[in-house]
Amino acid sequence: MSGRRIARIRVVTIATDTRTTRPDAVAVEEPLELRVAGSAYTTTMRTPGHDIELAHGLLAAESIIRSAEDVATMRYCAGSVEGENTYNVLDVQLRPGLAVPADRRRHSLTSSACGVCGTASIELLRGRPDFDLDSDATRVTASVISTLPDALRAAQPAFESTGGLHAAGLFTVDGRLLVAREDVGRHNAVDKVVGWALLNGRRPASGTILMVSGRTSFELAQKAVLAGIPILAGISAPSSLAVDVAREFGLTLAGFVRAGRMNVYARDDRITVGSES
Amino acid sequence: MSGRRIARIRVVTIATDTRTTRPDAVAVEEPLELRVAGSAYTTTMRTPGHDIELAHGLLAAESIIRSAEDVATMRYCAGSVEGENTYNVLDVQLRPGLAVPADRRRHSLTSSACGVCGTASIELLRGRPDFDLDSDATRVTASVISTLPDALRAAQPAFESTGGLHAAGLFTVDGRLLVAREDVGRHNAVDKVVGWALLNGRRPASGTILMVSGRTSFELAQKAVLAGIPILAGISAPSSLAVDVAREFGLTLAGFVRAGRMNVYARDDRITVGSES
Repeated sequence: MSGRRIARIRVVTIATDTRTTRPDAVAVEEPLELRVAGSAYTTTMRTPGHDIELAHGLLAAESIIRSAEDVATMRYCAGSVEGENTYNVLDVQLRPGLAVPADRRRHSLTSSACGVCGTASIELLRGRPDFDLDSDATRVTASVISTLPDALRAAQPAFESTGGLHAAGLFTVDGRLLVAREDVGRHNAVDKVVGWALLNGRRPASGTILMVSGRTSFELAQKAVLAGIPILAGISAPSSLAVDVAREFGLTLAGFVRAGRMNVYARDDRITVGSES
Repeated sequence: MSGRRIARIRVVTIATDTRTTRPDAVAVEEPLELRVAGSAYTTTMRTPGHDIELAHGLLAAESIIRSAEDVATMRYCAGSVEGENTYNVLDVQLRPGLAVPADRRRHSLTSSACGVCGTASIELLRGRPDFDLDSDATRVTASVISTLPDALRAAQPAFESTGGLHAAGLFTVDGRLLVAREDVGRHNAVDKVVGWALLNGRRPASGTILMVSGRTSFELAQKAVLAGIPILAGISAPSSLAVDVAREFGLTLAGFVRAGRMNVYARDDRITVGSES
């Protein structure tokens, strides 16, 4: 389980006038909850594997520990959910005399269960949307989606000079750009776009497509769902949890939008090809 | 200030046997502290600009607000540091009756100052390293660094099938791979590598180069500094704050390591070219 880095899924590849279902692989994304001295410290969305190293590195980056000797024990939570340990909770005991500074502890209570599994983590969607994204009737042609990467790049002036900015853009189903934003953080670029939609009375943002310049993670799918955006498209790959969230909430999720082709991981019925449209 | 997305800096371009200093541009990364009802809510590293949208989008993604009407006021902190408002603190008042749930509030106290400026944010380095990275005598040839992107890719099996994983690798100055790790999150990949170093008694990790598959942000530079890794190299661009941290702490920072060339943003003296080596 903890070495599982790739998830096998089925994907719909859309190219010009064709729609083909085939097996594919996506990178696994699952939450890891770190508990220090019995209290929740942080949760990070990560690819399972080398979790002990991850926890040591994370605690070192936050100056909680300085050497391996600062950790007395570190092990997966011994409990289980429905009889299965999900290996997504790590219990850390620091050496005697070492503790997390009071101002860095969290309020949140730790549940006695160890259950932070991939699917259950969709609970991390803090509050559900107050509208039904699944029944959103937005439709868009594959040819419109294919134009969006270039349109987004054209709206991204600062990238050209720095090569260091992510972009997110909100488009109508006829390919018109509503807003584009850049940021060093992909989640910030999306937050800026969603904030624009909110400030312009577009929540839920039915009839729109959110195009992002990179990969799509759990976090971006979550933001799209809570904004009521029915279609999320990325130039690169999605994570397994982005796919899970999309399928759970009825979000259309496309990836690898390049050269007139795309892979669609959920709700491909919203994307029409050739004579369908 | 709040529209400043690009920082002009000087960079050393190293190509085969040459070392040239020239002006360059990097994407600006600065912290934005969000305060809700007078208490610190979160700090995000972002590119300045459209901060009001960013704050709305972030609060919507966390289900604190559902519409623009849920925000009574949102404005930059009125105070200043040394007479200058840094526009890096946003004060939010929610509409009457709406509050951040108790379990999502933070312990941390808010300072009365508004000063979360780019450079001061280096205080975000939680605790300083307990060694002097600046005096680390590690040297490496440019030709060795040029081999690292391919070496890292070769050590990244899951990327090939998913296209969705970041990688980080720790190398010796003669180009030998010590450890490589993959993750959907670039910070996790680095945490895994740093954790490996910690568990193997290599902190500070003198004599090593940390190679990452993408961009270098404040967070990655911070992790390298606190791990005592003297050289951080990325295939893509750094952010302004990654450059600031590198220059402050004596970390060698290289970017755009491609086709035998690279840009070096700090401490280029550790990278030797041609006859120098």
